[in-house]
Amino acid sequence: MGISLASKSRLASIEGRVPTVTTLCSHSSLQIFHGARAEGLPSLGLTVGPPQRFYEAFPLARPDRFLSVPRVKDLPTVVDRLRSEGSVLIPHGSFVEYLGPEAFAELDVPVFGNRAVLGWESDRRKEREWLESAGVPMPTRYENEEEVDGPVIVKYYGAKGGKGFFLAKNREALKDFHPTGPYVIQRYVLGTRYYMHFFYSPLSDRGYRVGHGSLELLGMDRRDEANIDELYKLGAQEELLKAGIRPTFVVTGNVPVILRESLLPRAFDVAARIIERSIELFGGMVGPFCVEGIMTEDLEFKVFEISTRIVAGTNLFISGSPYSDLIAPGLSTGRRIAQEINRARHEGRLAEILS
Amino acid sequence: MGISLASKSRLASIEGRVPTVTTLCSHSSLQIFHGARAEGLPSLGLTVGPPQRFYEAFPLARPDRFLSVPRVKDLPTVVDRLRSEGSVLIPHGSFVEYLGPEAFAELDVPVFGNRAVLGWESDRRKEREWLESAGVPMPTRYENEEEVDGPVIVKYYGAKGGKGFFLAKNREALKDFHPTGPYVIQRYVLGTRYYMHFFYSPLSDRGYRVGHGSLELLGMDRRDEANIDELYKLGAQEELLKAGIRPTFVVTGNVPVILRESLLPRAFDVAARIIERSIELFGGMVGPFCVEGIMTEDLEFKVFEISTRIVAGTNLFISGSPYSDLIAPGLSTGRRIAQEINRARHEGRLAEILS
Amino acid sequence: MGISLASKSRLASIEGRVPTVTTLCSHSSLQIFHGARAEGLPSLGLTVGPPQRFYEAFPLARPDRFLSVPRVKDLPTVVDRLRSEGSVLIPHGSFVEYLGPEAFAELDVPVFGNRAVLGWESDRRKEREWLESAGVPMPTRYENEEEVDGPVIVKYYGAKGGKGFFLAKNREALKDFHPTGPYVIQRYVLGTRYYMHFFYSPLSDRGYRVGHGSLELLGMDRRDEANIDELYKLGAQEELLKAGIRPTFVVTGNVPVILRESLLPRAFDVAARIIERSIELFGGMVGPFCVEGIMTEDLEFKVFEISTRIVAGTNLFISGSPYSDLIAPGLSTGRRIAQEINRARHEGRLAEILS
Repeated sequence: MGISLASKSRLASIEGRVPTVTTLCSHSSLQIFHGARAEGLPSLGLTVGPPQRFYEAFPLARPDRFLSVPRVKDLPTVVDRLRSEGSVLIPHGSFVEYLGPEAFAELDVPVFGNRAVLGWESDRRKEREWLESAGVPMPTRYENEEEVDGPVIVKYYGAKGGKGFFLAKNREALKDFHPTGPYVIQRYVLGTRYYMHFFYSPLSDRGYRVGHGSLELLGMDRRDEANIDELYKLGAQEELLKAGIRPTFVVTGNVPVILRESLLPRAFDVAARIIERSIELFGGMVGPFCVEGIMTEDLEFKVFEISTRIVAGTNLFISGSPYSDLIAPGLSTGRRIAQEINRARHEGRLAEILS
Repeated sequence: MGISLASKSRLASIEGRVPTVTTLCSHSSLQIFHGARAEGLPSLGLTVGPPQRFYEAFPLARPDRFLSVPRVKDLPTVVDRLRSEGSVLIPHGSFVEYLGPEAFAELDVPVFGNRAVLGWESDRRKEREWLESAGVPMPTRYENEEEVDGPVIVKYYGAKGGKGFFLAKNREALKDFHPTGPYVIQRYVLGTRYYMHFFYSPLSDRGYRVGHGSLELLGMDRRDEANIDELYKLGAQEELLKAGIRPTFVVTGNVPVILRESLLPRAFDVAARIIERSIELFGGMVGPFCVEGIMTEDLEFKVFEISTRIVAGTNLFISGSPYSDLIAPGLSTGRRIAQEINRARHEGRLAEILS
Repeated sequence: MGISLASKSRLASIEGRVPTVTTLCSHSSLQIFHGARAEGLPSLGLTVGPPQRFYEAFPLARPDRFLSVPRVKDLPTVVDRLRSEGSVLIPHGSFVEYLGPEAFAELDVPVFGNRAVLGWESDRRKEREWLESAGVPMPTRYENEEEVDGPVIVKYYGAKGGKGFFLAKNREALKDFHPTGPYVIQRYVLGTRYYMHFFYSPLSDRGYRVGHGSLELLGMDRRDEANIDELYKLGAQEELLKAGIRPTFVVTGNVPVILRESLLPRAFDVAARIIERSIELFGGMVGPFCVEGIMTEDLEFKVFEISTRIVAGTNLFISGSPYSDLIAPGLSTGRRIAQEINRARHEGRLAEILS
């Protein structure tokens, strides 16, 4: 038996009934509702204001019902309603960000996964502590400018959406950086980016064993970022800067990728270390998470960030990916979440995957 | 009931019989024939000279029969044959371009969609009038060089294939442009490109309602362009220009992409405006169309062009896309066209989708 | 009847029994085992040291059994075991490279395809002789620096992994190249890269006919390369060089692409020429091969390399591609290999596809 994350009282609202897959209507909600439907679970879409009309265009991904609140911060006021609906909340990046990690953590409704992870992921310093103590290779962090011995990226604390980044090809170029707040200087790792969609099941007793459960790889993407991706078409960055045009790194979409098969062992190894350390630190992560890093020309994989929930890149693989199709045809991350809920329910182990 | 586009005499050739899906063998013809076959419709491939041999390599996409003409301009001479075959012509970019929009519009054979759109799409000024009067956000157009206040792209009128484009990072750089014909200066919008494959069904009475029908999103791609895509590998564009190497923008292929889910509402909104205005201007568009634009770092979507027919990027999604799989598993645009023809036939509404 | 590649004694080990699909656990082995399983063939994974654990994570792609050797060069010592297992070896890039083409060619176990191709592919000069004599368009090769009249790429003989490449935008820039060994200077062709996955079946008597068999197109990808792909994000290459940062071309993964349909005839034509000439030179290629080239702004396709085995880019298409889905739904290259073995077995023609 695994670790119990949820108390009896937390799970009282879904006891003896079919849980309702519930999430905020944004980010990866189409996929989450699509997966719930495919696995026979009811679904509920939370909206701020009236539901977006585009759900009408996707009959296989429209939630069974909607529940609207005037503002995101009114979500805590509908907790009783969510409990009466038998809701299990599926966290995603926008859901947690819009509501705030603290407010999200306090919702008295069953949440898929371990809500203790929120405190570790939302704080960059704690996240780094977690990953470094797990032995995950990360880009060097410089304490001051004198240490810089190669290209760097400078990030402001709490910067959102990639607008506050500054790139410098060496210490010399870093002189053009004039900080307007607290920041960190990291090595800028050259290579190709891979966003790896993993899933950790504490229920599974076969497959790639980690802790009491199993690790799965469900897909891989690369993020589209505006304006950096296509900036080069206009000219050299040095010349563009003179014209007042700066690179930005705002995520707008995703493209599908795969990794060389010979690099999979270290990808699995990194993901396993993250899980193992999460069990030691806070009882473990459950369900989808994403390892985001750069493969260098020396085939070293440097992790620059992790996401401890379903990521938007999984939306590419509504009907399966080159990885998940090796597990079961047509398996999306959204569907995998619904499968895990169903299994836990049938095995009486919901406390191990909900919190 | 919707708008009748086709007269009784135009449809006489297919009355009471199963229509034959007919298109020129190029562009997206494999997908169109594949979709016809999947929906049980016969197909006919029009070829200039003998059929290309590669159709033999794709048994599920080979048309049932071929009809060859010596030159494209001989197509009007086989109109009687096409009527006797019960043909419905499926327009695509190459079909209309090779034959010429005027000659295409005059063919006395049923055409899928509203042939009145041809006059609006083939004239850049009318297209812009249509989109601007629909309230679609587009890149600024400058009347003269003095107005230029940022990066621009200069396009010659009627330039084909993206060879005649000139990019300038500011007004200063524009001085290197020495026109050889009439041109337009547009703001060069920095961001990431999305080519969104929509489908408008005037027959549907459910889903995302627009006009008398419904709007669907079937997929998304990004175009490969030679040589601009990989030009940066050789060096800074400013240095390459000195070596006599200029950027070009010739489409060679496509890659699949998805957009952030939170940006879908404005994508649907833009597409709906285009449809609504088309109904006012010329009786409406029917079937596939593509909205082509750039998502900026501020998450504004600027439309630089639309295609009013099936686009080649849909060829990525022969067996469904991350969007169409939320409507019906394995749905391609080619198959969706065949479904629409079948539905119209069974409901006696062919006049609403053919012209 | 086609060309017999294998002697009776070579095939004695699989006579009258179901062959075991066998390959080295790397590169595209997940796909190969997945395809074998889908077509009902047993599979055996060869490993150096204990099997990688990640196979446990992919139940549909794990081989039925593993056979481990301490070092790659010990593989010849298990030949008797492989024969007793009824193995058919499936070559892939890593399998041949790790073992060495000579050692691979000498293994007395049935190999899928014609092992005579190894001598032609592993020697750049012979490969070029083959392709040029087939009339395949390739980038110009310069005999000396004075001939250079445009951008060039300089490759050292036998350079692996793309680290030893040097790019120069013209003859002037080539002066910065200081050779440390024998090298070749090639025209650097500007455009977009396509890696086309073909399959040649000597057994098929329908489809796109070449020689005694048929040519199929199963997919297309583009390789990810570190660090060149994302190098531009840090600045102009000329400036990066001053900071000691050089471009490298190490393959790390793949992305899916498609080509304009109107360019398929020349893609098939090039692939057919390569097959036809291989029949004349060494009895023909069998099964998967990849044509790797650049489409220019003038829509000319220049081939810079071919791979005469399954390539890693096919791993994108475990459940079918936009091309293979036009042949049979869900067809991967790995599955196509298994189908060919099954067909040859049932028709008593294994000698035509094994060697």
